[in-house]
Amino acid sequence: MSISLPRPIQRLSALLSSLQGIGPRLAQRLVLQLLRGERRRIRDLEEAFHEIREQVGWCPRCGFLTEGENLCSVCADTGREPTVICVVEEPQDVLAIESTEQYRGLYHVLGGAMSPMDGIGPEELRVKELLGRIREGGIAEVIVATNPNQEGDVTALYLKETLAPMGVRVTRLARGVPSGGDLEYSDRSTLGNALEGRTDL
Amino acid sequence: MSISLPRPIQRLSALLSSLQGIGPRLAQRLVLQLLRGERRRIRDLEEAFHEIREQVGWCPRCGFLTEGENLCSVCADTGREPTVICVVEEPQDVLAIESTEQYRGLYHVLGGAMSPMDGIGPEELRVKELLGRIREGGIAEVIVATNPNQEGDVTALYLKETLAPMGVRVTRLARGVPSGGDLEYSDRSTLGNALEGRTDL
Repeated sequence: MSISLPRPIQRLSALLSSLQGIGPRLAQRLVLQLLRGERRRIRDLEEAFHEIREQVGWCPRCGFLTEGENLCSVCADTGREPTVICVVEEPQDVLAIESTEQYRGLYHVLGGAMSPMDGIGPEELRVKELLGRIREGGIAEVIVATNPNQEGDVTALYLKETLAPMGVRVTRLARGVPSGGDLEYSDRSTLGNALEGRTDL
Repeated sequence: MSISLPRPIQRLSALLSSLQGIGPRLAQRLVLQLLRGERRRIRDLEEAFHEIREQVGWCPRCGFLTEGENLCSVCADTGREPTVICVVEEPQDVLAIESTEQYRGLYHVLGGAMSPMDGIGPEELRVKELLGRIREGGIAEVIVATNPNQEGDVTALYLKETLAPMGVRVTRLARGVPSGGDLEYSDRSTLGNALEGRTDL
């Protein structure tokens, strides 16, 4: 192109297209769309990004998303079953499992899965915090709901070997979930079936 | 869903999904993706939206995008042919025509097209500014490159009737561009042919 767009447009387009799910063309269209509309919407977005950065953190107990440094809405809910912990890789996996409406226990978000190839071991994940919760007592079962792929399997095996000696039942989602995929893409029914058919690990 | 995400996440997701091209599901995935990554990227986005709002404006002459209140990069380019003005609806149409590399004149961005049904007449568009530029003299031809749809046709006819008595040649893009569509989606070759085959209006 022989003419250049103002640098702020180029910068915002580049930042947006660095996100998975937004290509360069959509990024530019989004910026032009915003500029056509009311400036107030751009300010709202600016403020919303600011809020996200300033006000959203991780639950000190389970690692799920929360406001500030408070317990998250699951950990703060006294109506949940406190003897079961479902271990997931990422916050969106919590949302996926909640959507089944078949689970009423607590969660633990690891922040990823083990991947020896990439140098990601238990120390890089929130495993220590999980062990701490179990040592505090009162946990009867840990459901390992890592993704049904290689990294998830490695993580599940490690958790089984580590947790079983602590006297806690360790189960895993049934392989009703399609192998090789991402948990967050599974439909409610598949995830619900997998919760129902979980097997001892 | 029985649990709620922190309000800042809900707010940003809602704002993002109000944009054309981003659905609710992609919006939430984008926010979670950002929270997984470095906080610096969120700050960069926040700053980029701020810059867009503070530093991007409209060229006082042609209405294209520009930094601050300066002339845009086209109007400021002394190497462009100053006797021809190409009239378009939106800034992205300028980018589409530039991509043909067959046009070296100036532009005028109307900010939309006439639509009597929606109460959008010449007063709602930058028509007055266009007439002002022609009254200043030195313009031999105005190429009307409004979209090849009903609103674009109405606008083109209005411009012909208004500009022809001022002694300026008024042409329009050849209907090589597919009717009923949006100019910005046309490929380079179609747009290039349409420029070549423009006809007197």
